[in-house]
Amino acid sequence: MKELLVSGFEPFGGERVNPSALVAAELSGLEVAPGYRVRSVTVPVTWAGALPALLKALGAGPSGFPAAVVMLGQAGGYAAIGLERVAVNISSGTDNDGVPRADEPVVEGGPASYLSGLPLRAIVARLGELGLPAFVSNSAGTYLCNFLFYGALHHLAGLRESWRGASGSEGRGAGSSSAPAPLAGFIHIPYLPEQAVGKNPIPPSMSRGDIVRAVRVALEVTAASLGNQSP
Amino acid sequence: MKELLVSGFEPFGGERVNPSALVAAELSGLEVAPGYRVRSVTVPVTWAGALPALLKALGAGPSGFPAAVVMLGQAGGYAAIGLERVAVNISSGTDNDGVPRADEPVVEGGPASYLSGLPLRAIVARLGELGLPAFVSNSAGTYLCNFLFYGALHHLAGLRESWRGASGSEGRGAGSSSAPAPLAGFIHIPYLPEQAVGKNPIPPSMSRGDIVRAVRVALEVTAASLGNQSP
Amino acid sequence: MKELLVSGFEPFGGERVNPSALVAAELSGLEVAPGYRVRSVTVPVTWAGALPALLKALGAGPSGFPAAVVMLGQAGGYAAIGLERVAVNISSGTDNDGVPRADEPVVEGGPASYLSGLPLRAIVARLGELGLPAFVSNSAGTYLCNFLFYGALHHLAGLRESWRGASGSEGRGAGSSSAPAPLAGFIHIPYLPEQAVGKNPIPPSMSRGDIVRAVRVALEVTAASLGNQSP
Amino acid sequence: MKELLVSGFEPFGGERVNPSALVAAELSGLEVAPGYRVRSVTVPVTWAGALPALLKALGAGPSGFPAAVVMLGQAGGYAAIGLERVAVNISSGTDNDGVPRADEPVVEGGPASYLSGLPLRAIVARLGELGLPAFVSNSAGTYLCNFLFYGALHHLAGLRESWRGASGSEGRGAGSSSAPAPLAGFIHIPYLPEQAVGKNPIPPSMSRGDIVRAVRVALEVTAASLGNQSP
Repeated sequence: MKELLVSGFEPFGGERVNPSALVAAELSGLEVAPGYRVRSVTVPVTWAGALPALLKALGAGPSGFPAAVVMLGQAGGYAAIGLERVAVNISSGTDNDGVPRADEPVVEGGPASYLSGLPLRAIVARLGELGLPAFVSNSAGTYLCNFLFYGALHHLAGLRESWRGASGSEGRGAGSSSAPAPLAGFIHIPYLPEQAVGKNPIPPSMSRGDIVRAVRVALEVTAASLGNQSP
Repeated sequence: MKELLVSGFEPFGGERVNPSALVAAELSGLEVAPGYRVRSVTVPVTWAGALPALLKALGAGPSGFPAAVVMLGQAGGYAAIGLERVAVNISSGTDNDGVPRADEPVVEGGPASYLSGLPLRAIVARLGELGLPAFVSNSAGTYLCNFLFYGALHHLAGLRESWRGASGSEGRGAGSSSAPAPLAGFIHIPYLPEQAVGKNPIPPSMSRGDIVRAVRVALEVTAASLGNQSP
Repeated sequence: MKELLVSGFEPFGGERVNPSALVAAELSGLEVAPGYRVRSVTVPVTWAGALPALLKALGAGPSGFPAAVVMLGQAGGYAAIGLERVAVNISSGTDNDGVPRADEPVVEGGPASYLSGLPLRAIVARLGELGLPAFVSNSAGTYLCNFLFYGALHHLAGLRESWRGASGSEGRGAGSSSAPAPLAGFIHIPYLPEQAVGKNPIPPSMSRGDIVRAVRVALEVTAASLGNQSP
Repeated sequence: MKELLVSGFEPFGGERVNPSALVAAELSGLEVAPGYRVRSVTVPVTWAGALPALLKALGAGPSGFPAAVVMLGQAGGYAAIGLERVAVNISSGTDNDGVPRADEPVVEGGPASYLSGLPLRAIVARLGELGLPAFVSNSAGTYLCNFLFYGALHHLAGLRESWRGASGSEGRGAGSSSAPAPLAGFIHIPYLPEQAVGKNPIPPSMSRGDIVRAVRVALEVTAASLGNQSP
């Protein structure tokens, strides 16, 4: 059984819930595609804590690295599932610890951006067939969502690089694992309807059932794109 | 058993479905509040046909007039349930028969507008408690939704007037019925998620389950506001 | 020389300026159409003070009533000049004196609404020819703008009624004036660009020059619609 | 006298004008900051022609390379001046020649993105002081604007690389020029008011005068950031 690591965030910005954590938790343990089981983690909305929490979960699986890492985040104002394409090396805003950032790099000296490893167009197409609106987004903002997205992709790029150095073969761990370095990507989800209540103007939202279904489909399509890997 | 007449519209504007008709049909026959059963009707998106279809249904019940008439319509772009407050004596746009109107009165010589008879604030408040976003809207536009809304309220005002003339007591039918003239109002509902697919930009939507639940709650609150009327 | 009374509002909602007052003042004294001069007034954003200030100005002209009353108001979020069609008998919100209203009638027992007396479509068409975006709006909200709009139309309807009673001829003052009761309407204008600065998200705005030009055109078209009245 | 190269695009998407070309042309020849004169170029909205036209202009100055390249583009729907931060290696959409692209790289094998060389925050701050709304945008989309932006930054990065190789000193041309490689960035501008006319819903716009003023200020701030370079 392979793993799909799904992360969500704690609430922020005055919200009492964060649908990304609720959805990640709801999918936890499910076999969303043949041979692929979800493991989920909730990470804090802090510059200091978000990435370490994800990286800890990344290495914490019973069988080494997961096959893919799908990070979820709440995008207040989105009317649809947003498949994020670009993680940019910029971070801004004040986190849940009150720590501010103003256009600082996520990783000093890192490349300007990384691109998602998820099959974005295939996911949008499949969701559309199922009546669930989704789109490819070219900016995940510069707050914690983008920060985690960039941080994870940077870490995985380094891993890939080190494995390549160690083994001479692309994307293969020498001793640690026989699987390639995990794919990673970020999916932004709308507010839940209950979060839209009382805001003015009322923002778009999506029912929890539809969000769960959409993320599940995204995981299925991602798993399918990983191919028929022998156990 | 009293009746609540719920109307929906046929699809228009290139859509294959109209959530208002789907929801009206889904609620048909349900006892949404103690002693109140829904009867539903779908009306055409035509200047000539919409109001006659509603008025025919209005008088078609087994026990005379319904206790209330709740008209539903699709409001593409709405992110929440819209409790419409004002029906204005203006009509514009081209209907499903290709018949155009340009700022013509709904009823020649009619008053500038009528106000909804529904307990708007109570419905919004109750929906909010249940996590369903809703708002009071001050304009139902000038297309068929507003046209039906105005037409129905004008008809019912005339009925009330004639009953008053006949019986000398407000809102009581002389021979035809012992109940007061029905309350009437209009509720705009968002696109279904499947309708949002493929549009650019992607508009807000609401799941069918949530729309049905919201309309049902609106009917409950409306029924409750009708008071404890003896059978 | 006939008069066109143009009103603007004081700032509200934390703004330091209200473009409606700036524009009204800038047009003051100008002969915007042959034989028509603008007189302007700024009214407070208070339930108690707004209408009295307008009505005082209404009767304050050197030659009796103005030929038309064009009320201006700021509509934060509008991307174009909004020719308001409907004044509704509802008032809500907290005014600059801190006095709240919650869905109360503007005039107890008044009709549900009045319609603007301005030539809305002709104004929108003329503005479009000049490259200035404008639209007919079906709701002026329920705050002070709508309140003043409704209050003024209600007052003028009463005046028309009393003149009709006095003279037997529609819309003619018996002794007070030889002109018909003034037309009245409401025009919503966008934020100035400087008001958009610092807001998040940044709302649409319109340059002061374009707003002044647009209102001036609206006054010209209105004056033209008043016909060739002999002095 | 140093040069600031300002590019605009031809009209596209059914528009009769493109404000970016109008503004670039209007600024042509002006000394927008002491010692800095604007040279402007209009480029076609085609995958094949846009970058060559810009690169030709880049080398066409009387005194070698310009000090900076500021590309302008129309962003229908923007309510403010958008200082673009990220040029991404993705291109999509059908150009004015009818040639489609679907998520193809701008430069095969190029880095995921480049960041703007303009002093983005300083420009936004200065524009705000002058009452002109502006913001830093994290996505220039994936159409021709982003394509030109990425293509130019990629070209300039290569130039910088080759100069570094030739001279051993960063950003200095060996024989060709004594100046560093030009800074480059992209600024998105809203529709003109005349372009908003007739669209439904009416999009935000900005007056031509304000757009010209804003771009001029952006050029001034950019020139100031280039420092006191000896001639």
